[in-house]
Amino acid sequence: MPVITIERKVLAKNDEIAQQNRDLFARHGLFVFNLVSSPGAGKTSLLERTLETLRDRVRIAVVEGDVQTDFDAQRVARYGVPVVQIVTNGGCHLEARLVQDALAAIALPGLDVLVIENVGNLVCPANYDLGEALKVVLVSTTEGDDKPLKYPGMFRNASVLVINKVDLLPYVPCDLAALRRNALQINPALRVFETSCTTKAGIPEWCEWIAAQSSRRP
Amino acid sequence: MPVITIERKVLAKNDEIAQQNRDLFARHGLFVFNLVSSPGAGKTSLLERTLETLRDRVRIAVVEGDVQTDFDAQRVARYGVPVVQIVTNGGCHLEARLVQDALAAIALPGLDVLVIENVGNLVCPANYDLGEALKVVLVSTTEGDDKPLKYPGMFRNASVLVINKVDLLPYVPCDLAALRRNALQINPALRVFETSCTTKAGIPEWCEWIAAQSSRRP
Repeated sequence: MPVITIERKVLAKNDEIAQQNRDLFARHGLFVFNLVSSPGAGKTSLLERTLETLRDRVRIAVVEGDVQTDFDAQRVARYGVPVVQIVTNGGCHLEARLVQDALAAIALPGLDVLVIENVGNLVCPANYDLGEALKVVLVSTTEGDDKPLKYPGMFRNASVLVINKVDLLPYVPCDLAALRRNALQINPALRVFETSCTTKAGIPEWCEWIAAQSSRRP
Repeated sequence: MPVITIERKVLAKNDEIAQQNRDLFARHGLFVFNLVSSPGAGKTSLLERTLETLRDRVRIAVVEGDVQTDFDAQRVARYGVPVVQIVTNGGCHLEARLVQDALAAIALPGLDVLVIENVGNLVCPANYDLGEALKVVLVSTTEGDDKPLKYPGMFRNASVLVINKVDLLPYVPCDLAALRRNALQINPALRVFETSCTTKAGIPEWCEWIAAQSSRRP
């Protein structure tokens, strides 16, 4: 089965470069997370609220991953933070090599946190280590409460779950308790935040968590 | 570059089986569409409203594709139509071979329409022909109006766009005119429907289109 062999080689090569990224992040005392979700769940909006809240306290840089366009990098750049856009040109996930290349354009000394916003895809990015400390999976209430059971790989590989768009709960068929329960059934160790980027509910708690992670670094 | 060569071989083999599926559908006079979207955009909900509306007029069967669980097949089965669940076990898209295998479990004679609900993923399913007459891409207003520009492959390869969850427009930052404009910029030939599976807005027009497609078959 040559396809599987080559797929394994691709993943092994990716893991090798991810480790180089991880070593680089450690040398600079950087807290790095890989932000993953379906398209339109609110990754960039969460980043905007995060930068708005933390930019005077925590030095943050962003790597944006998209299939096409630099819209997300433009949105993030308005907050005056370093940002690099990776366009995958059809690719369904970021790989460690793409992140490594992007890092060449960011001055790492002096930074506290690096956020890597992955391509919007609840399946493929689960399997690609980028060198991050952890994955944060974002799910929107509008997607319904069954997604952790239907896309378990991503929830299993993540350490943090952000349930976004809680302001829309009155209008959508999503049982918040069931969503939490389903996620914790797949991964009981998940740390869960509930946010709305519109009302800013939950944003302070989420931002305090990031600040605490970054201050724990050497 | 062996990876690319093998990827090409995989796609060539897929296209060959897709053609076998297409020939089979033609022999039975079946109208077949491949329903694609992000996770949680409302593919199964749209199917439920469609079956509710059309089941006395059009004989419909469904092939469900999911990474994990048979929740969607269970939802569809309540409408008394033939349904087969494909579980990809981590796979990010359906392939023609999986559909071919699923077809063995459905009595095709007497059917008018077959709906193939793909895995929730706005990237990977764009490149895999399953033998369908056309792709229908569903996008939810909650995903924002920029998705056609950010994930152009799927919108380029689809023939029909369903903009779902229009009932949520008052609560989400989505400009419906911009969403249509962005989609038509990528693919000017797209036929566009606007629906809500909650209020049933637009469902009659969508269902009439399906009925017309099926009655046009030999």
